[in-house]
Amino acid sequence: MENSNTLEFRTESDYLGTEQIPVDAYYGIATARALKLFPKTGEQFDEKFIWAYFMIKKSAALLNAEIGRLDKNIAAAITTACDEWERLKEWVVVDPLSGGAGTSVNLNINEVIANQATEILGGKKGEYLVDPYNHVNMHQSTNDTFVTAGKMAVILRLRELVDSVIKLQEVIQEKEKEFYSIRTAGRTQLMDALPIMMGQQFGAWADALARDRWRLNKVEERIRSVNLGGTAIGTGVGAPKEYTLRIVEVLRQVANVKIAKAENLIDATQNLDTFAEVHGLLKSLAVNLYKISNDIRLLGSGPKTAIGELILPAVQVGSTIMPGKVNPVVPEYVLQNMLVVFGHDEIVSHACAQGNLQLNQFAPIVVHFTLKSMRLLTSSCHALAKYVKLLDVDKERCQQNLERSSSNLTPLINYFGHEVVSEAIRQANYDVEKALQLLAEKENTTVSELLKKLNIQKMTGLGYY
Amino acid sequence: MENSNTLEFRTESDYLGTEQIPVDAYYGIATARALKLFPKTGEQFDEKFIWAYFMIKKSAALLNAEIGRLDKNIAAAITTACDEWERLKEWVVVDPLSGGAGTSVNLNINEVIANQATEILGGKKGEYLVDPYNHVNMHQSTNDTFVTAGKMAVILRLRELVDSVIKLQEVIQEKEKEFYSIRTAGRTQLMDALPIMMGQQFGAWADALARDRWRLNKVEERIRSVNLGGTAIGTGVGAPKEYTLRIVEVLRQVANVKIAKAENLIDATQNLDTFAEVHGLLKSLAVNLYKISNDIRLLGSGPKTAIGELILPAVQVGSTIMPGKVNPVVPEYVLQNMLVVFGHDEIVSHACAQGNLQLNQFAPIVVHFTLKSMRLLTSSCHALAKYVKLLDVDKERCQQNLERSSSNLTPLINYFGHEVVSEAIRQANYDVEKALQLLAEKENTTVSELLKKLNIQKMTGLGYY
Amino acid sequence: MENSNTLEFRTESDYLGTEQIPVDAYYGIATARALKLFPKTGEQFDEKFIWAYFMIKKSAALLNAEIGRLDKNIAAAITTACDEWERLKEWVVVDPLSGGAGTSVNLNINEVIANQATEILGGKKGEYLVDPYNHVNMHQSTNDTFVTAGKMAVILRLRELVDSVIKLQEVIQEKEKEFYSIRTAGRTQLMDALPIMMGQQFGAWADALARDRWRLNKVEERIRSVNLGGTAIGTGVGAPKEYTLRIVEVLRQVANVKIAKAENLIDATQNLDTFAEVHGLLKSLAVNLYKISNDIRLLGSGPKTAIGELILPAVQVGSTIMPGKVNPVVPEYVLQNMLVVFGHDEIVSHACAQGNLQLNQFAPIVVHFTLKSMRLLTSSCHALAKYVKLLDVDKERCQQNLERSSSNLTPLINYFGHEVVSEAIRQANYDVEKALQLLAEKENTTVSELLKKLNIQKMTGLGYY
Amino acid sequence: MENSNTLEFRTESDYLGTEQIPVDAYYGIATARALKLFPKTGEQFDEKFIWAYFMIKKSAALLNAEIGRLDKNIAAAITTACDEWERLKEWVVVDPLSGGAGTSVNLNINEVIANQATEILGGKKGEYLVDPYNHVNMHQSTNDTFVTAGKMAVILRLRELVDSVIKLQEVIQEKEKEFYSIRTAGRTQLMDALPIMMGQQFGAWADALARDRWRLNKVEERIRSVNLGGTAIGTGVGAPKEYTLRIVEVLRQVANVKIAKAENLIDATQNLDTFAEVHGLLKSLAVNLYKISNDIRLLGSGPKTAIGELILPAVQVGSTIMPGKVNPVVPEYVLQNMLVVFGHDEIVSHACAQGNLQLNQFAPIVVHFTLKSMRLLTSSCHALAKYVKLLDVDKERCQQNLERSSSNLTPLINYFGHEVVSEAIRQANYDVEKALQLLAEKENTTVSELLKKLNIQKMTGLGYY
Repeated sequence: MENSNTLEFRTESDYLGTEQIPVDAYYGIATARALKLFPKTGEQFDEKFIWAYFMIKKSAALLNAEIGRLDKNIAAAITTACDEWERLKEWVVVDPLSGGAGTSVNLNINEVIANQATEILGGKKGEYLVDPYNHVNMHQSTNDTFVTAGKMAVILRLRELVDSVIKLQEVIQEKEKEFYSIRTAGRTQLMDALPIMMGQQFGAWADALARDRWRLNKVEERIRSVNLGGTAIGTGVGAPKEYTLRIVEVLRQVANVKIAKAENLIDATQNLDTFAEVHGLLKSLAVNLYKISNDIRLLGSGPKTAIGELILPAVQVGSTIMPGKVNPVVPEYVLQNMLVVFGHDEIVSHACAQGNLQLNQFAPIVVHFTLKSMRLLTSSCHALAKYVKLLDVDKERCQQNLERSSSNLTPLINYFGHEVVSEAIRQANYDVEKALQLLAEKENTTVSELLKKLNIQKMTGLGYY
Repeated sequence: MENSNTLEFRTESDYLGTEQIPVDAYYGIATARALKLFPKTGEQFDEKFIWAYFMIKKSAALLNAEIGRLDKNIAAAITTACDEWERLKEWVVVDPLSGGAGTSVNLNINEVIANQATEILGGKKGEYLVDPYNHVNMHQSTNDTFVTAGKMAVILRLRELVDSVIKLQEVIQEKEKEFYSIRTAGRTQLMDALPIMMGQQFGAWADALARDRWRLNKVEERIRSVNLGGTAIGTGVGAPKEYTLRIVEVLRQVANVKIAKAENLIDATQNLDTFAEVHGLLKSLAVNLYKISNDIRLLGSGPKTAIGELILPAVQVGSTIMPGKVNPVVPEYVLQNMLVVFGHDEIVSHACAQGNLQLNQFAPIVVHFTLKSMRLLTSSCHALAKYVKLLDVDKERCQQNLERSSSNLTPLINYFGHEVVSEAIRQANYDVEKALQLLAEKENTTVSELLKKLNIQKMTGLGYY
Repeated sequence: MENSNTLEFRTESDYLGTEQIPVDAYYGIATARALKLFPKTGEQFDEKFIWAYFMIKKSAALLNAEIGRLDKNIAAAITTACDEWERLKEWVVVDPLSGGAGTSVNLNINEVIANQATEILGGKKGEYLVDPYNHVNMHQSTNDTFVTAGKMAVILRLRELVDSVIKLQEVIQEKEKEFYSIRTAGRTQLMDALPIMMGQQFGAWADALARDRWRLNKVEERIRSVNLGGTAIGTGVGAPKEYTLRIVEVLRQVANVKIAKAENLIDATQNLDTFAEVHGLLKSLAVNLYKISNDIRLLGSGPKTAIGELILPAVQVGSTIMPGKVNPVVPEYVLQNMLVVFGHDEIVSHACAQGNLQLNQFAPIVVHFTLKSMRLLTSSCHALAKYVKLLDVDKERCQQNLERSSSNLTPLINYFGHEVVSEAIRQANYDVEKALQLLAEKENTTVSELLKKLNIQKMTGLGYY
Repeated sequence: MENSNTLEFRTESDYLGTEQIPVDAYYGIATARALKLFPKTGEQFDEKFIWAYFMIKKSAALLNAEIGRLDKNIAAAITTACDEWERLKEWVVVDPLSGGAGTSVNLNINEVIANQATEILGGKKGEYLVDPYNHVNMHQSTNDTFVTAGKMAVILRLRELVDSVIKLQEVIQEKEKEFYSIRTAGRTQLMDALPIMMGQQFGAWADALARDRWRLNKVEERIRSVNLGGTAIGTGVGAPKEYTLRIVEVLRQVANVKIAKAENLIDATQNLDTFAEVHGLLKSLAVNLYKISNDIRLLGSGPKTAIGELILPAVQVGSTIMPGKVNPVVPEYVLQNMLVVFGHDEIVSHACAQGNLQLNQFAPIVVHFTLKSMRLLTSSCHALAKYVKLLDVDKERCQQNLERSSSNLTPLINYFGHEVVSEAIRQANYDVEKALQLLAEKENTTVSELLKKLNIQKMTGLGYY
């Protein structure tokens, strides 16, 4: 909407100069400047973030009216405008990657609300019966509103994310039961290892996700402490005490998000370490999703010339040239997204670290990429859950693989020592049957005696010795 | 356009099943599946990449017709459709971050062209008089088309990027001249150091950018070698020899991009190290843009309580609460973008490294984030060039700073030794005048004698001793 | 010690071949192979990790003897050898960055203990009266011992790290009190902002560190769950049930480290997400240490030509050429180390993510770089604490800066609006006095009336309006 | 050697205070301070870097004597001391990760040379007949010497690295010939794809390394431009013009390294983008080594339950519990090292970017981690070359895999269309024979007719259609 469909313009001026604004635009001069200053990067604000920002403006108007600082009619027009956020959001046109610690978007939202409120009061866009600075932004700074809106959006995205992780875990647990007792060869360092039940493998994935649920449940508590009311540097200068003390509580009720006023507003304004912490926790989830997706890819590889134990669903044509090919497209989608989340983690960490003195000028990318990672993780969990549901096991292949792994002879080291058994396996060139024959000869026993010590059906449980 | 405005659907089927497609959609069943499989991430394909992909399809149709493999009417319909890419691109709706090494977008483009070509031949969407696989994709694979399109797009974006770097360098060089002889204190490790001329500092930035120009000029040569014609794994199986040998040359002429057929198509299909190399070169530019922007931020800091030597232009209202505040918003914009480019570099490197055997399944993010970094760099250069043009110098402040730096006494170490001069400065608590007095007393000379050895106007040139 | 001082060698053989070992070396053939396979990288094992590994071997010997699986004399020799770990550690010579998921170091330690125990039993090195595999490694795998040793070492390093953070926080809090009421200009985006008390700034740093203490206190609980007893893939195959059920408890008492047996040993063997989580928490500390160090660098910059509010201690000669120069060398040391910690975070995250199936083959770098980050952070906190103790404030400079910031006029926007005050400041070119005069003229009041509204001594507390 | 074996100390003093120095230590007071300031991180200076620093000191002494600025006896003592660098290097004890842009190590080396030269002139350690600042450091700054030494060390390490890459490439090319015509199934996205010859795969790896050789050959030209003679900020102040103009040439001859004086010394002092560029090129090599090692790991996986086409050499006992297990320990070693190189790349990039104004305070980690990456890459190439030499192919397994891949039917799409062939393969559940039967029935032909169109022995060359 940054370029409206009309060719008509209105003129707006301030102490810095004059700009032409599309006549139907709800934004104003400051936004027009931002559009010229900051070329579009292709990034988009998270909708939850825009919503949170409107709720902050609404809360401030409500409280400012209540404590007698803001004309009640103006306040009413502002709150009404804020409730129209869903329609107005198309006029939030500045780029998320703007300079100025978020000033551009705060200015943009102030102007949009001011123009909408002006219309409500009978004025025209650009007349500013309601002023973007003195009314809409009253007692606020970009520095306290931006980070507060960011934390609120994180909390909302968190709920979606947790739901998606739960969903994925549940689907994996269903498969854990479905495939429970199907035995196959384990593999360490990709080499044939002791047997494992397919259900055990799915269970290991599910238990990793259980840790993520625990972690994500901690995130809300880490991020809920906000600096709203601290104005520019956390000292609250420019806002009356009553406002500073009450605004977070008002916002909490207006938005129904469990935020709390930071004990030290100066600290909460300049330090963004909790975002780095939260993104670190997101990254732990990414680690698990990466491992799970990669394992599915490996177990489904082939199907004829590699491992081929999982039967991958044909959710899509796999190749435009090789007929009938099925690829692990959803695990690949997740792997890709996780690489992106790792990249975001680098961005967020450095951006959090490089704040200076009383403010972190990089708050925009900290907030933006944290939210983006959350959306990528949520999408990934949903896509993977749908995919895992469609997975099946090639039992015959599993049985073949199970029988072929020379690591099945491990229990024999307790009888003959590690060296002797190793030697037999090497001489037999990893052929299990041949290794048993060699061992029987060398140790003056029979293959059937040896096999009594080796029950691969039981070799997946504790205490097999 | 992924959800069209109509509520009507047509049905398409293939060996995997049936899907409902919006009746006016140019895409088909494979695209519909991809839309369900891969939730939107908010990323968008680079327009140049889409263009390149259409040009590949056009070239293949032209060549296939010429060598007698493709019906001439069908080929003509395909080439006509490809020329409509700008209109059709809205129907390329799959996400850049899809799994499958890019299969989704290849399928999507094949379908869009097939439906458009079908219409040209008098059919209706979904009738596929022109088949997405057997006609549009003839003798191609995602694996050779995707990477080739990516490299073509890089070459086009490169030209824009180089222009923007040249522009920025020129603006900085103008300022180098404008500010040439304005002397001020240098600073190493942020501490007062030997004098420097403001022009010298701008010159150092400009010379760093000169290296980037050299580097970027090398990129095209590094990236121009493409694997088109290699089909699925670089062996060219499924395509006639004549096609494989000639397709790159045809494409070069159709698209007017200086690509060349890779000598080893198998290598060029599976190895994406040149993208890592190119992104590494992009990152070197990011290093310089970061340093320059950060320096501008430091030199303009204050203006009253920090360095304050550069006068930052008031391109935007700096604060919604602190009146008259001017912030270095454009340098901050660049710094942010560069942190993002560093993050992309991590993504691209790992994605390039993690290809497996005959293909790199992560080609989509390799290509996508390389192009995205290029756009971010181009935008940053343009924004910074406009900004630098508006910079001015506070000469009075420079003069004050120049005179106050105790490092101006450095030439005296050649007379009295490092220890003696150091001690005087420390005793004088970094007050230059007082340090000279202390030194004069101790060394039985006069301040004016000392000053004869110290000409700060000359202390910015070689051989000052 | 990898190359002993002697030129004599003994010969050792196994089923893979024969190697020459320095005659006085406690290590054996497997270690000799590792030394040839893996060139030295310059990295060194954390001493706590080596200690933990010896404690695991000791615990296994104790328990194996108790449950009747291991000859009591052999067990006694092993436990005695393990208690000699401090002397023997010089023979742990393989590189931390070896392949094989840590097999080399497990083999190395097994051999060292075996040879020492052999000597205790009256044998000679290389005779292996105590066998590295069948006795020392009894019922163990690299896969359960390595990760367990790593987690134990993390817990020990954690205690040191927490102590160092507490120390740093305390020193900063002392300075918070010492400098409490010294007012100066705040700076946002490096530009003059509202006033702040130096104590408030130190308080903001201290409160950030308080969050780190909270975080680090959570780490132990996240990392204590170990897979010892799970042997190769977590199924415990190869070990008797009694061993698997009891070994962690024995180790806990032997080593006095609060570890606990993982509920799902298969999960705990293959998933290393808790290391990524822990390193993410370490990185949050790095974010704060970076911010604090950088702020000290900025506040101490100059001292004459930049901010100069903090007086940096002359802990070292600052320059070999510029006399008397003092540099922020310790903050720089911390900044450097934090950049390294960020790099480690990338390494650890990717390494955790890239485990395959039943094992993470990259456990060695996961453990190594986690411990290395912990040591870097501990060193940094200690160095910074000593340095902060020596910081002083230049009160005169602070007062000058305080008075010069035009943001002091912020409270006037509640009287005249943001636009009017902004314009005055711009016209006055950021000269506060001149801006007040312009404003007085324009608003028909006097400078002294305006000054009544502006008390910079109070402009650092809540509710200043 | 930082703590000598003696318990005796000498006392040294300067304008900053007094320190106790071990009586036999060649270092002095500045080094003693650095040891207290900067706790050991476990990192070690690259020996080539130390060597280069001594050569710089030698060259300066030679030139300073020649131009009459330095007493010839003193100069002779210094040059003699510098030639003793190999013995003296144990006294270079400060940590590579010190603050101060490298000042600590310059001071350390100055003191070591001064004390050694003092002894040569008949004095005792601590008497400083030769002064660390006024003689050894004459006309130098840390700021020009440190970066120059770093670039020289890079050039030397580069030669070793290039040799190791050549060696690896040659070994791979030998295997390319050895395995040339062994056909097996290709795999894209880990799924069965068109056939490939094992030699083609080795050839693709070799050709990727050919690009690295080209890249590395460019590095020297990118890094050879040095700022020696520029002193503190590149203006050369404090050094006579003759010195500045000639010192690089003298050094070039003394050290026999092809360096060149930077055209803009100010630029070359403050901008380290060439290090970021060089590390980016190193990272491209890391990308290829990662891909190759990972591919070897995949092709050798199993050997019985996964791909198993490469026979991995048993270079080490693979498991301490699973008998006879062989693991891809060397490819894993390389993979680990490459993850570390990627981490270094992040460190180096950010450190290069974050220099400020006339100096990059992070030069120490830039230089250190660049050199460390080079050593890791060199070690990795050597280890991998030895390993690849021992690789063999399981031809029987290759033949089995070759025959089983359903992608072998790809050429049939040119006869029956992609859809029809795909459907047959899906119905046959990827059994090639069964798919051919189904196809024959459907298309009214015979399997033998179909097989005439499919010659897998030729399906690895261009133009198979």
